[in-house]
Amino acid sequence: MSGNTFGKIFKLTTFGESHGIALGAVIDGCPPNIEINELDIQKELDRRKPGQSKYVTQRKESDKVEVLSGVFEGKTTGTPIGLLVRNTDHKSKDYENIKDKFRPGHADFTYQQKYGIRDFRGGGRASARETVMRVAGGAIAKKVLEKKGVIVRAGVMQIGDIVADSHNFSDVSKNDFNFVDKSKVKALENFFKELIKDQDSIGAKIIVNISGLQPGVGSPVFSKLDAELAKSLMSVNAVKAIEIGTGVDSVTMRGSENRDIISVDGFETNNSGGILGGISNGDDINIFTSLKPTSSISQKTTTTNIDNQKVDLEVKGRHDPCVGLRAVPILEAMAALTIIDQMLIDKAQCFDVERKS
Amino acid sequence: MSGNTFGKIFKLTTFGESHGIALGAVIDGCPPNIEINELDIQKELDRRKPGQSKYVTQRKESDKVEVLSGVFEGKTTGTPIGLLVRNTDHKSKDYENIKDKFRPGHADFTYQQKYGIRDFRGGGRASARETVMRVAGGAIAKKVLEKKGVIVRAGVMQIGDIVADSHNFSDVSKNDFNFVDKSKVKALENFFKELIKDQDSIGAKIIVNISGLQPGVGSPVFSKLDAELAKSLMSVNAVKAIEIGTGVDSVTMRGSENRDIISVDGFETNNSGGILGGISNGDDINIFTSLKPTSSISQKTTTTNIDNQKVDLEVKGRHDPCVGLRAVPILEAMAALTIIDQMLIDKAQCFDVERKS
Amino acid sequence: MSGNTFGKIFKLTTFGESHGIALGAVIDGCPPNIEINELDIQKELDRRKPGQSKYVTQRKESDKVEVLSGVFEGKTTGTPIGLLVRNTDHKSKDYENIKDKFRPGHADFTYQQKYGIRDFRGGGRASARETVMRVAGGAIAKKVLEKKGVIVRAGVMQIGDIVADSHNFSDVSKNDFNFVDKSKVKALENFFKELIKDQDSIGAKIIVNISGLQPGVGSPVFSKLDAELAKSLMSVNAVKAIEIGTGVDSVTMRGSENRDIISVDGFETNNSGGILGGISNGDDINIFTSLKPTSSISQKTTTTNIDNQKVDLEVKGRHDPCVGLRAVPILEAMAALTIIDQMLIDKAQCFDVERKS
Amino acid sequence: MSGNTFGKIFKLTTFGESHGIALGAVIDGCPPNIEINELDIQKELDRRKPGQSKYVTQRKESDKVEVLSGVFEGKTTGTPIGLLVRNTDHKSKDYENIKDKFRPGHADFTYQQKYGIRDFRGGGRASARETVMRVAGGAIAKKVLEKKGVIVRAGVMQIGDIVADSHNFSDVSKNDFNFVDKSKVKALENFFKELIKDQDSIGAKIIVNISGLQPGVGSPVFSKLDAELAKSLMSVNAVKAIEIGTGVDSVTMRGSENRDIISVDGFETNNSGGILGGISNGDDINIFTSLKPTSSISQKTTTTNIDNQKVDLEVKGRHDPCVGLRAVPILEAMAALTIIDQMLIDKAQCFDVERKS
Repeated sequence: MSGNTFGKIFKLTTFGESHGIALGAVIDGCPPNIEINELDIQKELDRRKPGQSKYVTQRKESDKVEVLSGVFEGKTTGTPIGLLVRNTDHKSKDYENIKDKFRPGHADFTYQQKYGIRDFRGGGRASARETVMRVAGGAIAKKVLEKKGVIVRAGVMQIGDIVADSHNFSDVSKNDFNFVDKSKVKALENFFKELIKDQDSIGAKIIVNISGLQPGVGSPVFSKLDAELAKSLMSVNAVKAIEIGTGVDSVTMRGSENRDIISVDGFETNNSGGILGGISNGDDINIFTSLKPTSSISQKTTTTNIDNQKVDLEVKGRHDPCVGLRAVPILEAMAALTIIDQMLIDKAQCFDVERKS
Repeated sequence: MSGNTFGKIFKLTTFGESHGIALGAVIDGCPPNIEINELDIQKELDRRKPGQSKYVTQRKESDKVEVLSGVFEGKTTGTPIGLLVRNTDHKSKDYENIKDKFRPGHADFTYQQKYGIRDFRGGGRASARETVMRVAGGAIAKKVLEKKGVIVRAGVMQIGDIVADSHNFSDVSKNDFNFVDKSKVKALENFFKELIKDQDSIGAKIIVNISGLQPGVGSPVFSKLDAELAKSLMSVNAVKAIEIGTGVDSVTMRGSENRDIISVDGFETNNSGGILGGISNGDDINIFTSLKPTSSISQKTTTTNIDNQKVDLEVKGRHDPCVGLRAVPILEAMAALTIIDQMLIDKAQCFDVERKS
Repeated sequence: MSGNTFGKIFKLTTFGESHGIALGAVIDGCPPNIEINELDIQKELDRRKPGQSKYVTQRKESDKVEVLSGVFEGKTTGTPIGLLVRNTDHKSKDYENIKDKFRPGHADFTYQQKYGIRDFRGGGRASARETVMRVAGGAIAKKVLEKKGVIVRAGVMQIGDIVADSHNFSDVSKNDFNFVDKSKVKALENFFKELIKDQDSIGAKIIVNISGLQPGVGSPVFSKLDAELAKSLMSVNAVKAIEIGTGVDSVTMRGSENRDIISVDGFETNNSGGILGGISNGDDINIFTSLKPTSSISQKTTTTNIDNQKVDLEVKGRHDPCVGLRAVPILEAMAALTIIDQMLIDKAQCFDVERKS
Repeated sequence: MSGNTFGKIFKLTTFGESHGIALGAVIDGCPPNIEINELDIQKELDRRKPGQSKYVTQRKESDKVEVLSGVFEGKTTGTPIGLLVRNTDHKSKDYENIKDKFRPGHADFTYQQKYGIRDFRGGGRASARETVMRVAGGAIAKKVLEKKGVIVRAGVMQIGDIVADSHNFSDVSKNDFNFVDKSKVKALENFFKELIKDQDSIGAKIIVNISGLQPGVGSPVFSKLDAELAKSLMSVNAVKAIEIGTGVDSVTMRGSENRDIISVDGFETNNSGGILGGISNGDDINIFTSLKPTSSISQKTTTTNIDNQKVDLEVKGRHDPCVGLRAVPILEAMAALTIIDQMLIDKAQCFDVERKS
């Protein structure tokens, strides 16, 4: 109810602040007999962690995960899995000068309003550092999905005006921008050089692709699969728009071109994004997420403080010029968590229904 | 879990099929001592019901609501409110010829896959007729919000290439298109004349605006207010994209222009759409939803049937050329239901925190 | 959250007041393809309804149920099942004289405190009449359980000092007391004659037996199967104690006699009541519930009113001398609802685990 | 859904096995601005921990708790509180000889059936060691309740045939049996001397008392306060019966003596146990729980193994002769967690209702 748990059957509960002692999670509802080891999780955490390229924040965190329970002799037992990552590089001093000030574009103002108290160090719980445990949970979700033949992938497809011509997920790990089209890397390098010099930041668009999912997953009406995915991905910091299949562009389309004709070999087009009536149709699910530019930039500005006075603001600390770059494994994790949860719900709903797999 | 309940504290549970006996709902968690009468609900249902203009389906339904419980001597008692609307104009015969066929763009295929059985009459539970009870529930949510000074409004802002120049919510009820800019009505009339002649349909974009909401509402991390709104509105039939404040356009923006500077008089801009870190900041919340064109058009096509054979399809029945037109009260209802639920959750979380109202 | 929904996967939501327009329910999460008709439900309602013998209240209600949705051509479709029973014999006049008075042993005082308003007619939502929809929901749960070989039965085993010597569930429908030992019927008749003459009421103990349940159902730690059953049965009006297997008597037992030795043919004794560590062990589940005597008796008394003044109270209306008699189908229903819900949860948790059936 | 989370608003999620690396918990939904320090929690853990007297298991565990998040400068911030206790004395070797055998009265058999795999060391997740985190969570719940004037206390009132004559909660901490009547201590010492010599164990009855709770807390129908308490306390290992106020004894009572007459000074008796219609009435809440004798005793027996063969069983390890003794702080914790959760739910339901406090 207070928002730190994701999922209904495969449930991820997380805790921890940016500059607190540790980040942690509990996964309750992971099926038994799944082979899991810390390396599976570490591999995903390493994709997310800071300092991976010169275009992301240089905070030094090893993000070393410890599995505390729920796995016995290399396999899940059906009991809750406890995960822990201790913070190491928490330079809280950086934040003393802004402890009473509200940074624009951040949750400082709203946390103060809501709770009447806040941990101001690095954004506290509202920091993107909170996503470490999303990725850890997603790593376990991916292991279960893998057994069921479902693959979740993501990649940046647009940064500012630079748009990918093609979506090659194999390109993603091979460039500093997690971009799905390596032919744009040179242009991106030049653009970022300029951007960093300007002490500014930029938005990004990310495609998330889910393949191998059988038809029948998702609950109609209020918990449609697209609705659950929209919530899941919108909950990631900086995400401002979600499109399922043909999204905003469907406003200008006619029904005769938008409806996906069904043939004996499957759907002829995929404007639906793989979901009809809130239920997976067996086609690829494609979700497009738009992320705003990082709000913390080095340019000075004015803002207000806790006493509603006008004050100068200079944000130090270490920030990403484009939060989109590091969002790729996080969005993959959220999509994976959503899909496995919905697949398990479907088992409870329709356990006796025979499906073509 | 099976998707027919919305909300956690103010909970709406709905039932009923397009061509079944009745549609109904239970609202559990409505605060006590709220003045409610059937007219409040009927007024909203009448905004949604078919046959209101020549641009919408002509199915004849009075959509007369009956309040069965939870209201005593004109006031809510805190016990669940039962609502009922009986179906009258259910011409099931129209659907006999497509009982084994899967209409493109509809949930026929996926319901059959999921459940192994389906009520094919008019889309059954997947019909837009399901939204009657969303609107009824939303009418009650609005009554509670009204007491708290919160107003929820919506209007169509784009149909095909016709885009509103301004967003005047007072225009909405004064034209056949629920459009927020009456200067476009003539152009829309011409466009629809053409569209109907073509036996085709068109997409639409709708703005939903929430004003008067105090800061502090929303739960961080996985249940951010924007995430809950995204889920809520994406669950409405035909919605394909959700943007909160500056959405897709934030991809091409820089941080220096996107972050909303805070002054002693409030936020200088509203790119955030009234939500920061998942919590309301006191500004207007603006959500933009993109709806696909109606999939059921009169143009003939081919499709598959339950035995995966290619078959001809001619959809009769009565359909809207633009589902967006009738979505306005539905999206308002969903936004209202989300906001009241989140306000009540906030009461439980932070009941002792003093807020500036 | 407001307490009118039972279950997590197989969810029953009910509404309606004793002297309101109707009682109703929504069952969301019933598996598809289950054969259901109104007679299945009516049969159970008829077991509960008033006026069945001279030892129960004589209120005249036909309790005729209408299935409004979720069933198509005789089978469930996986969509929510709407149920309705209209009230007919609501003599609200009987209650005018006590509208401001708090009847002892009833919820009058606490509803007024909680909500600041209450429907005083016949106890409103707090009336035992609320259980009509528990029984209707339970009837559907039983249909699903039947397919899985699970049988739920209950019977009165003690009334006052009259204790059953044996537990024959086949006796239950054959006497006016729903008693599991027909040899006690004569004694009961004599006892009730006296009781009614005294204008008094008496407590009762009911055994609920669940047979045919496979091992493995139930979720450890906070949602143990025994914990869920305790909540479920304790939620029925007048229930004051729950024992699982050997309950209160285990206080005086030694471990050497209490632990149920396991042999290759099964458990040698069943002190556990069929549940170990919160999970079914394949043995019969036995639950013992103690019900208090009816609080509404014809004897005059004093009480307080809404202004906390001392007032005389004479409760008219039509009341049961022993609420236990009519609780039998209600407790069966609650047990059935609990078990089917837990079986479906188990499907989601452990769908790949092979069980000996 | 998998049972490791307790509560709806004030949510406790726990993880950890008896002989695993650590036990941990997340509390999500604790109100902000509550003063908490590790000593508050440690004090309660020390009441529960083994080795406190010669009548309990001698396993050596310091049960030192670490608060990982959610508390900033000594106060809760409204973000989730992470808690960790590392296991130190886990002599797994003791369990190698029973790894394939099912101990009677334990969850070995049912975990193996349910999950197809289990951590056999010390009962794994099914061990009473799991309750460490219940007590830690309960300690925080108590801090919040304290601010609201609510006190939760418990004590043993019966062991075997030795029954307390009076219920003095101040006696509890002053004897080795957590007994509410110190006049029985000598008798208990003699009884336990015999019991330990016999290598046997004994059941116990515990009273839980909640005072200072305002009227109005609890949700009618399925989530009655008594139902929630029954679930909560029944979920504690070894609990076999729950009575609310006058429980099993109400079976033989008449309505004229059982109904609690209301006077202008309050209820004249308290057979209801402080709850009417599922809602607190302002009186003390009294709950009586019956616990079975420890199933693990040193006496040899036979049992079955994973291949359903008859085998000899000799349970070594370190066990309590009466689990009831150490259950006192655990039951207090569960009652405290239930009450704070229900109080917060009530805030959401009835925030505008004015109550006499």
